[in-house]
Order: sequence, then structure tokens, then C-alpha cells
Amino acid sequence: MSYKGINLREKFGLFGDQWAPKVIAEMNDYQFKIVRLEGDFIWHDHKDTDETFIVIEGELRIDFRDGAVHLSAGEMFVVPRGVEHKPYAENEVKVLLIEPRGVVNTGDAGGNLTAKNDAWI
Amino acid sequence: MSYKGINLREKFGLFGDQWAPKVIAEMNDYQFKIVRLEGDFIWHDHKDTDETFIVIEGELRIDFRDGAVHLSAGEMFVVPRGVEHKPYAENEVKVLLIEPRGVVNTGDAGGNLTAKNDAWI
Repeated sequence: MSYKGINLREKFGLFGDQWAPKVIAEMNDYQFKIVRLEGDFIWHDHKDTDETFIVIEGELRIDFRDGAVHLSAGEMFVVPRGVEHKPYAENEVKVLLIEPRGVVNTGDAGGNLTAKNDAWI
Repeated sequence: MSYKGINLREKFGLFGDQWAPKVIAEMNDYQFKIVRLEGDFIWHDHKDTDETFIVIEGELRIDFRDGAVHLSAGEMFVVPRGVEHKPYAENEVKVLLIEPRGVVNTGDAGGNLTAKNDAWI
């Protein structure tokens, strides 16, 4: 039997909407989600879990209340649970997110940038 | 305050030994480990957890009892818990592994390829 890997570039080619994470794989109760980000997100946190960002293409800044981290392609950062953060990208950036199933992109903050959860692609 | 991302290429530059995963980050009780693989590993499984492989550079084949998956850079695969597998690389491949803290590289199979667990870099 021939199994097929998950090609990140191919998966990104299947959608164009921004700030709308798409699930591409699961590992136990965690999900791998890809997302296109551009501009400013909102301040939020995730009370119950860390959240991992891996930049696949482009540049991402994650603002914290006391600073920021700048990530390029091939770089990652784990935002600790409960830490307020705000992603920002001057130009569109392609990101792989890893977090437990059920995590909402805006945390408890809500608002119109809240994306549909568990959208597979 | 300025935070620093984790650069995969830089981290791979810090070691040269093969089949010896190095932890570079944690997310909750999961670990991100980078590893250089070349040649044949042993058949093993992980009874209690899925295991994620993301190829960073090179080509990886993962053999299963009923087939195989071929992964290139930018491709990933989640090996389900309990499924016997054997990684193989004709030439050295750089891989990012994601799995719960405490998972041993050879599963229950043991042997002289069993690597030190929880080795950070």
C-alpha cells in the first residue's frame, strides 16, 4: 500500500482566505493547522494551552504586552498558555499552527475575526 | 523585551550525530525534536501515542508492514499509535519530530539505536 504525505505547499494552494486556520492533520488530540495571516490580529490568549507557530513562508511578528518576537521562514515559537499575544504580518505570511483540538483562534476575546473551528482542508 | 524564535537551520548546525533526537521546544507536555537520519532504523511502534514527522531537508521513507510513505522537504506524516514503522533515508535527511515528552525513539523495541531521551540543544 502506498501512503501519502501531507505537502504543506499543496495544502496552502487550496485556499486563499486569511485568518482562517485549516486543519491538515491530527496527532492524538492535537491539530496541525495552516493559516494565511496579513495585517493585525487582535489581542488574545489561550488560558489552557500553549500554542505553537512555525513560519513556512514570509515574516511574522508576534506582539506581547512586554515585547515581540520576529519569525522568518524556518523559525518557530511556542506562546505559553495565558500569555496575551497579537500576531502581525506586514505582508502575507504562511504559518503552521499546532495546538489541541478545539482551540479557538481568538481565545476568549471573540470578535469578528473568530474563525470557524475544525475546518479541514 | 525582545524574544527570540527558534531557528531550525541554526539548531541543526549545532550537532552532527545521527539517530539522536535533540529537543528544541516544548508545547504543554509535547516536545519538538530535531534529528538527522541516514540509513535504516529498526522496526518499532509507540503503543500510547501518534508520532509526527516533518521533513525539513532531504528525503525520508517510512516503511510500514503493508507499504511506505515517501516524504520530501515541506511534507509531513503522522504515524498512528501502535503502527509498526521503520524510517529509512538513502542520504542524510533532517527531520522535525513532534511527540509527547518521554517517548523513546525505539519504542518498546530497544537495542543499540535507542537514544538518550530529553536531550536538549
